[in-house]
Parts: sequence; C-alpha cells; structure tokens
Amino acid sequence: MADLLGDLTRTHTCGGLRTGDVGADAVLLGWVHRVRDLGGVTFIDIRDRAGVSQIVVREDEALMAAAKRLRSEFVVAVSGIVQRRSEDTINTKIATGEVEVLAREIRILSEAKTPPFSIADDAQVSEEVRLRYRYLDLRRARMQQNIGLRHRVTLAIRNALDAQGFWEIETPILTKSTPEGARDYLVPSRVHPGEFYALPQSPQLFKQILMIGGMDRYFQIATCFRDEDLRADRQPEFTQIDLEMSFGTPADLMQLLEGLVAAIFKDCRGVEIPRPFPQMSYKDCVEQYGTDRPDLRFGMPLVRLDEIAKQSTFSVFQSELAAGGCIKGICVKGGGELSRREIDNFTQLVGKFGVGGLAWMKLQEDGLTSSIVKFFSSDLLESTVKTMKMEKGDLLLIAAGAQDRVNQALDHLRRKIARDLNLIPQDALKFLWVTDFPLLRWDADAKRLESEHHPFTSPNFADIGLLDKDPLKVRALAYDMVLNGYEIGGGSQRIHSSELQEKIFQILKLAPQEIKEKFGFFVEALQYGTPPHLGFAFGLDRIVMILTRTENIRDVIAFPKTQKASDLMMQCPSPVAKIQLDELKLKTAETTEIPWL
Amino acid sequence: MADLLGDLTRTHTCGGLRTGDVGADAVLLGWVHRVRDLGGVTFIDIRDRAGVSQIVVREDEALMAAAKRLRSEFVVAVSGIVQRRSEDTINTKIATGEVEVLAREIRILSEAKTPPFSIADDAQVSEEVRLRYRYLDLRRARMQQNIGLRHRVTLAIRNALDAQGFWEIETPILTKSTPEGARDYLVPSRVHPGEFYALPQSPQLFKQILMIGGMDRYFQIATCFRDEDLRADRQPEFTQIDLEMSFGTPADLMQLLEGLVAAIFKDCRGVEIPRPFPQMSYKDCVEQYGTDRPDLRFGMPLVRLDEIAKQSTFSVFQSELAAGGCIKGICVKGGGELSRREIDNFTQLVGKFGVGGLAWMKLQEDGLTSSIVKFFSSDLLESTVKTMKMEKGDLLLIAAGAQDRVNQALDHLRRKIARDLNLIPQDALKFLWVTDFPLLRWDADAKRLESEHHPFTSPNFADIGLLDKDPLKVRALAYDMVLNGYEIGGGSQRIHSSELQEKIFQILKLAPQEIKEKFGFFVEALQYGTPPHLGFAFGLDRIVMILTRTENIRDVIAFPKTQKASDLMMQCPSPVAKIQLDELKLKTAETTEIPWL
Repeated sequence: MADLLGDLTRTHTCGGLRTGDVGADAVLLGWVHRVRDLGGVTFIDIRDRAGVSQIVVREDEALMAAAKRLRSEFVVAVSGIVQRRSEDTINTKIATGEVEVLAREIRILSEAKTPPFSIADDAQVSEEVRLRYRYLDLRRARMQQNIGLRHRVTLAIRNALDAQGFWEIETPILTKSTPEGARDYLVPSRVHPGEFYALPQSPQLFKQILMIGGMDRYFQIATCFRDEDLRADRQPEFTQIDLEMSFGTPADLMQLLEGLVAAIFKDCRGVEIPRPFPQMSYKDCVEQYGTDRPDLRFGMPLVRLDEIAKQSTFSVFQSELAAGGCIKGICVKGGGELSRREIDNFTQLVGKFGVGGLAWMKLQEDGLTSSIVKFFSSDLLESTVKTMKMEKGDLLLIAAGAQDRVNQALDHLRRKIARDLNLIPQDALKFLWVTDFPLLRWDADAKRLESEHHPFTSPNFADIGLLDKDPLKVRALAYDMVLNGYEIGGGSQRIHSSELQEKIFQILKLAPQEIKEKFGFFVEALQYGTPPHLGFAFGLDRIVMILTRTENIRDVIAFPKTQKASDLMMQCPSPVAKIQLDELKLKTAETTEIPWL
Repeated sequence: MADLLGDLTRTHTCGGLRTGDVGADAVLLGWVHRVRDLGGVTFIDIRDRAGVSQIVVREDEALMAAAKRLRSEFVVAVSGIVQRRSEDTINTKIATGEVEVLAREIRILSEAKTPPFSIADDAQVSEEVRLRYRYLDLRRARMQQNIGLRHRVTLAIRNALDAQGFWEIETPILTKSTPEGARDYLVPSRVHPGEFYALPQSPQLFKQILMIGGMDRYFQIATCFRDEDLRADRQPEFTQIDLEMSFGTPADLMQLLEGLVAAIFKDCRGVEIPRPFPQMSYKDCVEQYGTDRPDLRFGMPLVRLDEIAKQSTFSVFQSELAAGGCIKGICVKGGGELSRREIDNFTQLVGKFGVGGLAWMKLQEDGLTSSIVKFFSSDLLESTVKTMKMEKGDLLLIAAGAQDRVNQALDHLRRKIARDLNLIPQDALKFLWVTDFPLLRWDADAKRLESEHHPFTSPNFADIGLLDKDPLKVRALAYDMVLNGYEIGGGSQRIHSSELQEKIFQILKLAPQEIKEKFGFFVEALQYGTPPHLGFAFGLDRIVMILTRTENIRDVIAFPKTQKASDLMMQCPSPVAKIQLDELKLKTAETTEIPWL
C-alpha cells in the first residue's frame, strides 16, 4: 500500500524530547506553532498533542528556504538530530526546554490558511468564534488537556467499577416517551407512522429492568437528553455515570462510591480524598446552609436567631416572627472592615430573593455596634455574640422573613461573601452526603403531590405509615453527593414491591390508563421476582469541570451546543428535504424546500 | 438509614462456593431456581449472576414450612453453613457441585408470579415472548454470559486502545442530517421550528474533525443509527468501535488493529491469534472466492476454467464465453459420493443467482466421468484435473455465465457445501485483510459515480492520475478486516487535501450548493492544516456474536428491537401527546389523542 508519509515514521512526540534523547535521530510530526527568523538561524516551534519542540534551521540554504515558506498551523514532518540547547536559549517553562532538533529535512504535509485566532497564544476569543472553528479551538493546549483528562476520568471509572463487579451494559437511545419532569426529544418512526421514539432523559427504567433481569451490578457512561431551555451550565445532551446494584444497602453503595470518587481524584489529580465523607440530612443542610448542596470549603453557617429576636424590641423582627417567618444570621469573620457600600450591596442581593432588608452588627472593642443595638438588652447582645461565635472585628448579618426566602437569600449571600473576601481555599475538595430528602413535594399549580426525585424512589421504611396520613413528612431513601457546593450525583434505594410502586403512582394521582401506557411493563416486571436494588448517577460533565477547574461546561465537551441548542460548526439543526418528511408522514409549519434533493 | 436487607450481607455469590468454604457461615442472595421437596429434606437451588448453589433444608420445622412457600423466581436471602455434599449428591457439572449450604434462615425478599417460561431450563421459547419479557430472558444463563462477555470485550478494547495513546472522545448524538447511503433518523427541534437534528450514522465527520483538531488518536465505542428496513442481522441502533489516528500509515494501523483483536480474543476467549493476518486484494478475493469477505476456514477456491472451456466443444460454455461470460469451477473434496439429488439442490441454488445450470464431473478410478466429458479431449480432461487439483473421489462443479453472477452463485454454493459437508472446523478463527477496494462504483439508476465506501476515502496515490481518465479503475486506500466470512470492520486513509476532497465531490456530481450545505464546514476545516489521517470501525455486535458463537444479533444486545424496529417490552415507538407535537410545530397524518394529557 502506498504511504502518505513516505519513509517518515514518527520517532518522538513533540512533547516527549528530553536531554536523554540528545544525539538521537528524531522525526517529529506536528503543527507549526511559532516561527522566529533571526537571520542566520530560524527557530520553529512545532506542536502536537503532547507538547512543543524547538526546531533549529541554520546554514543549509535549501532548508532555510523551506523554513521561510512555513506559516502558523502548517502541518510538517521534521527530521534531524536532537541536541542540547545553548545555555541562553534554555526554556525552563516547558518539558522539552533543554533540547532542540537540528533540522535535516522539513517536509510540508499540509498548508493552512491564516486561522481566525492564534492557537499559540491563549488570548481571549469570543466563544461563538471558538465554537464555529471548533477544530482550531481543540488545538489549544487547554482544550487538549481537558479532553485528555475526560478520557482518563472515564477510563478510571470503568476500571474501578469493573473491579467492583459492575458490568457496563448499553441501553437503547431509541426509547419510549414518558415525559415526567423535563421535555423529551422525539424521533418520528417511519415504519410506524404517527408513532415516535423518545431519546432517554436517563436510563432509569432500563437499569431497574436490568436488576430485575438478574444483572446484579450495572453501569454505563450514558448519554442523556433533555429538551429544555438551557441554562448556562446545561447541554441538550449530557453524560451521566449511571449505575445500579442489587442486594446492597445505601451504606454499601455510599462506601463504594466514595472509593470510586477517590480513585478518580487520585488517578486524575493526584490527591488523596479523606473518607468516609461526612453526611448531613436534607433538613440540617437547609437549616445550616440554606441549601441542599452546601459549599463546605468555608464556614459561615446560617444560625437561627429566633429566640434572641423574640426578646428584642425591634419591631421588624417581631412582625416577621409573628407572620411565621424566621430570623437567621451569618457571622463574617473580620467583616467589620467592610464599608457601608459593600453592606448595601449585600442588602441588594438578599432583596432579589424577597428578603426586605439586612440588619447588621459589628463587634468592636466596646461591644456590638449598629443602628439596631438599642433594641437589644446587653444580655441579649452578649447572647448574640455567643450564639454567633463572634470575635472582635467580625460582622453579623441578619435576615428576617419567610423561611424559604431567608434560606435562599443567605445561601447566595454566604457564597458571594466567600468569593468577595477570598475565603475559598484554592484546590480544597469538600465532599458531603446529603441524605433523608423528602419523598414528595406539593405542586401548587397542578394541585397534586409530585416526586422530589422520581416515582421509583423508595420511601424510608420507618415512614411508610405516613404515606397516607402526612405524605410530605415521608423521607426518601435518597442521597446526593455534593462537592464544593455542586451536586455531582444523586441516587436512591428503589421501590422493589409492585404494590408499593402502585401506591406511589396513586399518591401522585397518575390515571390508571396513564400508568398502564407509560409504566405498565415496568409494574408487571416488578411482579416477577424483583431484588432489592439501588443506584446512583454522577454528572460526568460537572466532575470533569471541577477536575479541570473550569466554570464553562463547553470547555469539557469536544462538540458542545450553544444555549440555543445549536452546533455552530456543523450548522445544525437544519432544514431537511421534503422527501425525508414525506417518508415520515410528517408536516412542519416551516418546511424549507431544498433544491437539490 | 434504614436497610432493606436488615442484618443480612451477602458473603458469597451463588456461583462462588467451593470446598475451601466448607465450615464457613454464608449468606446467599438470589432467585429460587429449582425446589425439590423429598419429604424429610428439601433441596433449593438458588441462582445469581455468578451461578447456582444448592441449599439444604432438613429437620427444622419452621424452615421446612418456609421452604414450602418458595416458588420459582422468588427472591430470597439464605443464611447457613457451607458443608460438603454427600457423595451421591455431588454434581460435577457445576462449579459449586461439591458443596451445599445447610440453611439456618430463609427470608423471602420478593415473591414472583409464575413466569411465562422457565428460567432454569434452556427450553426453546419464541423470540417474541423472550423480547416481551426481556427481564426474564436476561436471567437465563446464556444471556447473562453474553452480556457479561460484551462488557469484558468493551473494557479490553478500551484499555488496549488507551495503552496505544488513543483517547476516548464522545461525539454528539444530535447532529446534522447529511443523508448519504442510508436514511437518517430525524429529531425535530423545538427551539428552531421546521429544523431537525439527525442521529449519526457514524461519527465519520467528527472523528476527522478531531484529527484536524490535533487530537492525534481518538476512539469511541459509539452508538450509530440507520433508519433502514432491517435485515435479520441489523438493528436500528448499533454499536461501533470507532477510531482514527493522525500521522500513521495503513501498515501501522493494521498492525495496531491486529494487536487489538488479538488482545480481545486472548482476554475473552483465551486463544492466541497468529499475526500478521494475511492480506488479499479485493480483485483477488473476488476472483478466488467470488466475494470480498471470504470464509477461509475451509478451501474450495473458485478456479477459472475459461481456457479449458474454450478448447472444449461444449456449446453452453462456448456461448457464455462468446457473450463475455466466464467459466469457473470448484472442487469438492470427496464429493464424488454426493447423490444426483444433492447435486440438483446445488443447481437450484446457483439458479437463484441467475446462473442457468451447474455442470459437474467426478474423478473416479477410470478418470473423469460426467455427461459432458464427451465434449472434452483427454488432454483437456487431464488438464482439468490438474488445474482443479482433483484427487480420486472428488467432485468438480462448474458454473458458466456473467462474471458477477457466477461469482455470487459460487460464493453461496461454496459456503453451502462447507456447511452441508461439515467442512468448517469448530472454533477456527481465520482473519484476513482485504485491500485495494475500488474507490468508486457506477450507479446505473442515478447515472453517476458513487463512493464505494464514503466520499472521504483517499484514492491510492499511484492511481490519482486515473481519476479523470478512468475513475472506475482507481483503487482506494481502504481495508476491511474479515473473520470467518464476516466483515467485522473496515477503514481507510482519508483525504487530507481540500483540493482533492473537492475534486472527489465533483466526480460524485454533488452540486456546489449541496456540498456547501452538507460539508461546507468540513471542506473549510480541511484548509486550516489537516494532518494525514486514517481510521477504522469495527462492528461490536458482530464481534461479540462471533465470540459468543451466536447467529442472532439480538442475543448480544440487552434491549434489542425487532425487525420492525419495535421494542416489545416497552411498547415503543408509541403515540405521543398532541401538546408534544404542538410544541414542535409538527403535524402527523395519524396523531392519536391521548386522553390524560
């Protein structure tokens, strides 16, 4: 067979040369990163996935001429001899910085137009341009590192789960539409006109069916789909590390998942994660941090001040308490230095969440000072300092109002202050299990109960008696894993009794016909010997974001879509030919005729 | 957290008990496989993914009563002590056959209705019933082995490719419709009404873009989709082991792939595959075996007899040759024993492929015998025996006609004879590279040239001059891997020059507007520094079929669809709610109203 590279075979990667290679013949293949023509000598940096090497061209006239033709992003093959750099040209910033290749031959394999942005600089480029020219963006070091890391993470997960007896099993992408929560993407069927497949929002039913099918331990790195109006950190298709096991307990699973996460962080970031992770009930989380995914990299818990406020004469507190609200404070360490204007900003922030104002007190040499201390007795003030664990120079911020609003406002405020005051230690990794979620919530619009997670979540067995009497008090056997304030995964014990499953469907007020159409096969399957089983799903994108220290989900996906669910490179979605729709017996309001089809 | 299993933790799997465990306390969890009540003693076989263990219940009355309640497929937890079986109850057919568990406690975790077919027997069940109750079918030993093996194959592939520097990179499922060959599955966009995504038929363009993006070596175990009327061995969604590399040669890639395949067969079937694999050009394959995917587990090559036939006086041969046809024979070793009726069956078979008749000769003690030997001189008959390498007792079958028909007919005949006469050695694995495919074929209906593989395949560089003069003579740098008569994968060097790519599009008579709409971004990308690159894709389903020795693709997929592309368990595709279609601004000829939505 003919050979495009002729006699040239890569001997080293561009990132792989070291002083140990000095004297060796080398053939490097890669992209022209930078060219510096210094007259008698030309330096060419060439780049591949592994890094950058310096090529030196000197003396030989034909070579000098060849070097002159090179432009950024040309693809070249260079052969030559590896030599030590002269002292003054050593670059300690890169791994290949002590050596260079004295060129013997330079062969251009591909020319390149001038790219719309430089690959070599890490200059800021608009995301639209980056996505439009994704193939150029992917050449940049940061994207290559992210994509490489994503590969290592998924491989580490697969090997770790295999070692625990989990089998990776593919579940279908063309599945049944059972809209519940999010909107399905639909796929019209040609063979069955008028009928549709749906793309899966998760493999939930399939993985439970696999347990009923005796597969014992399943996992999958699964693509999932949601046709939602996208938030900044969402994608219409996203990747889930999905797993399910039979015959285990939540404690078994949590231990196993901690080991999995520790393996990933060890393999991919070289850090040891202390285990076991702390656990906190949903109720305690919300009480102490105002959220079910608290960021534990810094302190500043929310502290309830109802009792103290009740004894004060401050009418605002009194009337909020009388209206059934609550009073909560956070203590900002050293926050006494903050200006009035900064505090006003905080007030504005809590206002967005419907909390009318933010009272404050500073602990100074002579005690608490504030415009509202006059409403508090000195005993009360002393008690406040103690309750809030304040020290001199600290600032106390107090919010009053309806419980949900105060919690939400103080959660946001707490995180804003942590960012503003640089309270978040770089590289800290604070894991937390949140447990004992409520099973149900009240949907005021639909006037019915809804599942907090999904209808297959098992109630806590201690609470089953409450299902009829006080359903909102029933705790679920559900658990989320939280890292640095992000929910990185969640799971639950599943219902394995068909009677209990039917009861839950009834509580959710699903019509019998609807149960039958959507979940009939599943309720039937439960009757044929279902093992106790439980499972979990991690958001892979989020985990890779944390590992790569990016806030942009599109930086960890090779070909992401925009917030309008478009692929700017491929230009899709796009119109299709009329014949394609005719075959599907479909009509769309806005069909475009495409002339060549 | 509450615990569904109470105090019981699995100590062993049902398949894991050995004589070394005698005396140990065991807790087994699994399904009731069989119950044999012998009066004073009851034997219960319980089953999990790993195998079956025998439980003995004797004496204890409460336990005997508990055992009486058990039915097939109940899920139970059993605790007890492992003991050696009595000599007369040892079962040498199963790995746990020397031991049993003397029960101390039996706890029913789940009851089961009587299943529609037995899990314990491997009795034949209609495939419709198996698919309808897939969760029961998956419990059968054979399906568990297949799914477990599929897991091991994919993990072995991932680790082998990682070791070679390939990164697994996910490419989108929601992509652009560029119908080429097969029909796309479409996904209507809600955000862009009237526009559609398509599900990918393969990640072809994305993987080439990844090479342009400097990713060097990519792979993916990718789900691909084709909306075709399904043949028995096809599925609407199927899995491809997809890979692409830059800067290598076909020889490099072929060597690497041989290593990959050898690793899979070593890991998953414990056999050493001899390397390198033999190679044969497309032309030679078709000449010698009538097909481009010959089964080399047995001989019987097709041998051209044109020269001999030309010198005979047999008018049938003469007229076929005059019409531009060919005469080819195959020698059936020991086929002289075959009856007239058996040979008539062969004649019928070749008739299906448009070959009018099948001449035959037998080599007996006194030379070739046949009704047509009279048309051949004795020299010619001697030459025939020599050309066909015949020995006494062999049968020669001769077909005459148009070359394509003769090849197709003799390919089928050759394989039928091999099956009928048991010429295929059990467990033989015969790999072959087929190379030098034609780049183009003539589409008589569309009256234009079409790509034999896809339009991104590179022509052989030696043949580029023929592109304008004699395009059907141009060989592609394409290579298929064939195993036991199946094409298990294929790949090619890709075009990396935008000029050559545009020229190919022109040869294929794609309108400039069509090129721009479908591939515009890609042609543009090629201009920004494209490395030489090449790739390959294996059909995972086929490889697992061969490893598990099944002819049924649905036996290696957890949740397959029928030939009508239906999921019989989930009952999909299915009608959707009008509101779902309204949101997509879609109308279908046959919308069903769903009352509860």
